[in-house]
Amino acid sequence: MAGDFVLPQRPGAAAVAAAEGVDGDRLWARLMEMAAHGATEAGGVNRQALSDADIAARALLRSWGAELGLEASVDTIGNLFLRLPGKDDGAAPVLSGSHLDSQPTGGKFDGAYGVLAALEAVEAMQGAGIEPARPIEIVAWTNEEGSRFSPGMMGSTVFTGARELDTVLAARDGEGTTVGAALARVLDAEGDVPKRQLGGRPAAFVEAHIEQGPVLEAAGKSVGVVTGIEGKRVFRVTVIGKMGHAGTVPQGERQDAVIAAAAMVTAIGDAVAADGRGAKFTVGMFNVHPNAPSVIPAKVHFSVDMRHADAVKLSALGDGIVRLCGENGMGCEVDVNELSHDAPLDFCQPMRSLIGAGSGALAIPSMDVFSGAGHDARHLHYLCPTGMIFVPSRGGISHSEDEWTEPGHLADGARVLTAVLATLATA
Amino acid sequence: MAGDFVLPQRPGAAAVAAAEGVDGDRLWARLMEMAAHGATEAGGVNRQALSDADIAARALLRSWGAELGLEASVDTIGNLFLRLPGKDDGAAPVLSGSHLDSQPTGGKFDGAYGVLAALEAVEAMQGAGIEPARPIEIVAWTNEEGSRFSPGMMGSTVFTGARELDTVLAARDGEGTTVGAALARVLDAEGDVPKRQLGGRPAAFVEAHIEQGPVLEAAGKSVGVVTGIEGKRVFRVTVIGKMGHAGTVPQGERQDAVIAAAAMVTAIGDAVAADGRGAKFTVGMFNVHPNAPSVIPAKVHFSVDMRHADAVKLSALGDGIVRLCGENGMGCEVDVNELSHDAPLDFCQPMRSLIGAGSGALAIPSMDVFSGAGHDARHLHYLCPTGMIFVPSRGGISHSEDEWTEPGHLADGARVLTAVLATLATA
Repeated sequence: MAGDFVLPQRPGAAAVAAAEGVDGDRLWARLMEMAAHGATEAGGVNRQALSDADIAARALLRSWGAELGLEASVDTIGNLFLRLPGKDDGAAPVLSGSHLDSQPTGGKFDGAYGVLAALEAVEAMQGAGIEPARPIEIVAWTNEEGSRFSPGMMGSTVFTGARELDTVLAARDGEGTTVGAALARVLDAEGDVPKRQLGGRPAAFVEAHIEQGPVLEAAGKSVGVVTGIEGKRVFRVTVIGKMGHAGTVPQGERQDAVIAAAAMVTAIGDAVAADGRGAKFTVGMFNVHPNAPSVIPAKVHFSVDMRHADAVKLSALGDGIVRLCGENGMGCEVDVNELSHDAPLDFCQPMRSLIGAGSGALAIPSMDVFSGAGHDARHLHYLCPTGMIFVPSRGGISHSEDEWTEPGHLADGARVLTAVLATLATA
Repeated sequence: MAGDFVLPQRPGAAAVAAAEGVDGDRLWARLMEMAAHGATEAGGVNRQALSDADIAARALLRSWGAELGLEASVDTIGNLFLRLPGKDDGAAPVLSGSHLDSQPTGGKFDGAYGVLAALEAVEAMQGAGIEPARPIEIVAWTNEEGSRFSPGMMGSTVFTGARELDTVLAARDGEGTTVGAALARVLDAEGDVPKRQLGGRPAAFVEAHIEQGPVLEAAGKSVGVVTGIEGKRVFRVTVIGKMGHAGTVPQGERQDAVIAAAAMVTAIGDAVAADGRGAKFTVGMFNVHPNAPSVIPAKVHFSVDMRHADAVKLSALGDGIVRLCGENGMGCEVDVNELSHDAPLDFCQPMRSLIGAGSGALAIPSMDVFSGAGHDARHLHYLCPTGMIFVPSRGGISHSEDEWTEPGHLADGARVLTAVLATLATA
């Protein structure tokens, strides 16, 4: 199966011809239609994982797959697959896709582009008369963003075995709903979709995605050959103080969870600044209880997202978080819980070569880029040969309603993806 | 009218006799019945202003008033009055009461005690056959707490003219509902209650309240003669940063609203610590947008509550907030909006004497105390002779579901209030 598969490092002529059949208008129209599910007034998308908007988006994807004759299936964690059979249908499949869920104030392209580019690639291959030797599966991984249910990348981590299914199903959103309960609603709505076993070992995985950074735009390139993904440690810090009246408890006798949490954030920020320009530190979530102006806060729960391309520095900065939170507790009870620690990684060289050669064969300007954002490809990397194709993000903006990529760049990325998938599937 | 009124500084014998008729069990039973409206699982009360629970609490108060033959009326800002007519019913009334609204995680006694102690005082006077020379009005001021709609003390400030009605009606809660809309619901539910004109000049105002601090408990006294109220400045700070992806925007190019806000909170806290033990500083509310773990926060909106007994120090510390927020903006747009600036105040000496003498005549152990918390009495102070009677708070705890005062202390406070009101109303 996968073990027999030798990764080709150059695209064949038929694959390049198929790539030239990519229809940029069709891809754009599908992206806009998909963006209607969870559309926000400001032109963005709020399509959080396992929501009604997510259910609607998945149904739309399946309807497009059905038009192309693809076989839909769904696994136990809700990953949705659309399969184009291979001549040897028992061979390990080539997987391509990304995710359909978004941030609460997300854009039209993050995730959805990778899924719809894979669909476009399959349609272009069909149009070119390519009959793949092995199956191609388009995949929409469950809950990549991790904004409603934390941590993210639930679908890809359960698929690859990096996380236990039961642990993931027990995670809760801010209103106390478990992933298990929310997923049951999704699977109910998709009662007619055949179930498939969790996991498996694909022949390869390729994910197209917007860059989410400014590098490609600044360099004037349409496509980025992703060399690797920055390391990331994710924490939740809980600070338990003592509730009281803002006017009556003397300052020196307080256990004020907000004052303590602010000191922690400031101390970690200072440590990151002292480290130089390599680290990235974000406290994106900060919840206060009871959150009333004249009540001394009893509790703060905040997120810490720390990233670095250097594994040793990431390790040290992350360990420093535990220490700095403890040192700035100011009498409060402090709990620092690490949700994930993903080391930096480099994608395998043959896949990077194939993507670069595909761009070259199509005369599409490309360059090597590093990913600051995490992706499902991070987890597939440890399971099978994996690569990523980036397209530019205007102003480097993503996780924002202002997210934008030019239609021509989206089409170029889909062309390179088509060349790569057609090559992998016919090898 | 009020101008003719000379404040007696000692209670008469009839007033003391009426006070001895206070029924502590009846008062306690009413407090517990009132606490059922908005009751929380942890034994506290969530009865925010103009909520359904507030409407139910007001209806219960009116039903008790009706049993005593008191005339209910409501003014344009929703202040609810229960009137015991005087022999000269055109004379300026003696006002007594507090508020029925609570913090989101409040207790059974803050506010409700002052209203129900006034009701108990009137019933005790009726039982003793006292016929007041001037009217006595029990009042429940609208939205003292200011947790749902900010700022607090809306009812008493509009009554006294310290704030404009239209400005207050336009204030919105976190969900965008205006005070005007929420108040219309309350007034609809109370369609059968006669309307009264806003304002007027009472002969006097007396407010019973829990201390919310530890002084009375530590000294073993049942009653506190409140000497004055600490000064307070209330701010809202808005920090506008730039939303972005936590993994892709270089640290040095960010405008991170949480990092900036945390630095502001830390800097203000440091300034307060440098000032010594007199100041009290609370950031009770801190809201982040979009509040997602992997999104650089675009906006933080937080409250600042600064208190000091010294007017000059309060002024300087408050002015420092504007400066420190500006200095720690870290590239974000910063707006500091001062909602209120209440100078420290001392209640008039005759009222303090009368309360102290009432305690002495009833052999109830009392002492002078200062109020760290703000109260509606702050605003009445500028309109008419005003005083406050405190009862102990166990552990100094309030604005908390753990709030507690011993039934015997509550009864003692009501006895002193009865002696004071009976004296004022017969003078």
